[in-house]
Amino acid sequence: MTALQSHPRFVSLEGGEGAGKTTVLHALRVALQEAGAEVVNTREPGGTPLAEMIRGLLLDPSHEPPAAETELLLMFAARAQHVRETILPALERGAWVISDRFTDSSYAYQGGGRGLDAGFIAELERRVVGLQPGLTLLLDVDVARGRERTRGRDLAAGANGPDRIERERDEFFERVRAAYRARAAAEPRRFRVIDASQPAQAVADEAVAQLRAWRESA
Amino acid sequence: MTALQSHPRFVSLEGGEGAGKTTVLHALRVALQEAGAEVVNTREPGGTPLAEMIRGLLLDPSHEPPAAETELLLMFAARAQHVRETILPALERGAWVISDRFTDSSYAYQGGGRGLDAGFIAELERRVVGLQPGLTLLLDVDVARGRERTRGRDLAAGANGPDRIERERDEFFERVRAAYRARAAAEPRRFRVIDASQPAQAVADEAVAQLRAWRESA
Repeated sequence: MTALQSHPRFVSLEGGEGAGKTTVLHALRVALQEAGAEVVNTREPGGTPLAEMIRGLLLDPSHEPPAAETELLLMFAARAQHVRETILPALERGAWVISDRFTDSSYAYQGGGRGLDAGFIAELERRVVGLQPGLTLLLDVDVARGRERTRGRDLAAGANGPDRIERERDEFFERVRAAYRARAAAEPRRFRVIDASQPAQAVADEAVAQLRAWRESA
Repeated sequence: MTALQSHPRFVSLEGGEGAGKTTVLHALRVALQEAGAEVVNTREPGGTPLAEMIRGLLLDPSHEPPAAETELLLMFAARAQHVRETILPALERGAWVISDRFTDSSYAYQGGGRGLDAGFIAELERRVVGLQPGLTLLLDVDVARGRERTRGRDLAAGANGPDRIERERDEFFERVRAAYRARAAAEPRRFRVIDASQPAQAVADEAVAQLRAWRESA
């Protein structure tokens, strides 16, 4: 695989911390199932047993932190596996695939956030991924507001506290957001930007409406 | 880091299965220590806590096997970490570093063995490694003979049996050996090829003699 292929039944959901992805993922799945489609919900990093183990290494704060380059290659190692083992087989049997994050996350977090060269990320994408979503929904929200929601969620769940990436500073997340918005502006045919400062149900409704419009046009 | 820098006190040891690396590593360390040098012995994949965890994922046959591209990126993720956390700090404080395998292993196993593009491997090397050994000792041995030794060692140790890579077929290891020999032929100033079909002590003596000659010339 050396060129990027887009697939109409492959949908990715992107966004920063606290953008409300979980509610949207559920709503998208239900909407497609009600229309009679088989739906595979998956996530990154992860989506296969090995890729989930790589996720564990990435988010675990117990060993030394990965260098930016290590983090980038672990993300793409997991993604190479995810595409081959989970996403392509599902698309080939006719299912829809909805992925909670995909390659745009690497451009946003490792590119925008950590400052790694976007040209290198693009080469990894061409060389080891080769596949692009037909539709990418970007849940866009103010950094301060998104992080406030994440803290609320962690407290409510009695969670173990933030993972390694959630511990980054606000400037990091501002760069992530800016990189996401720049990608959306550069690829308007693939991206739909949804204002995720709205109440969760309104965000989910808008995401479902965008997916329906995409499905009818595709 | 985007260019390759060679370091005179950085030595790598390469070779296929059963080439006798363990004996040689020990002999090289003793020789340098007797000459009053600080020596760091390290290995790939591995050499830091995180990189050793990546090694565990690579060699563990319990999850689904990695795609060739996944394997390559996991190797380079571990190497990026190894260079930054272990090798460069040791070189900077004046130590010698002897690594059991380094980037040449990726050209041999993932390039020669698995058929991945050497140009892509070279780009990963430039982008995330940036460092090359001053001296690389290649222990070269016939595939059949090397594998016979590995089996003998596993039986003697009552080991858990071969790991995922050791289970490959002979043709795979023939391609690995050919790739190693081609690299040695292309970079005669860095490589010394040692006939590892000799008895272990003779191999170790020759490796120590090569290292001494290198040290005096550097």
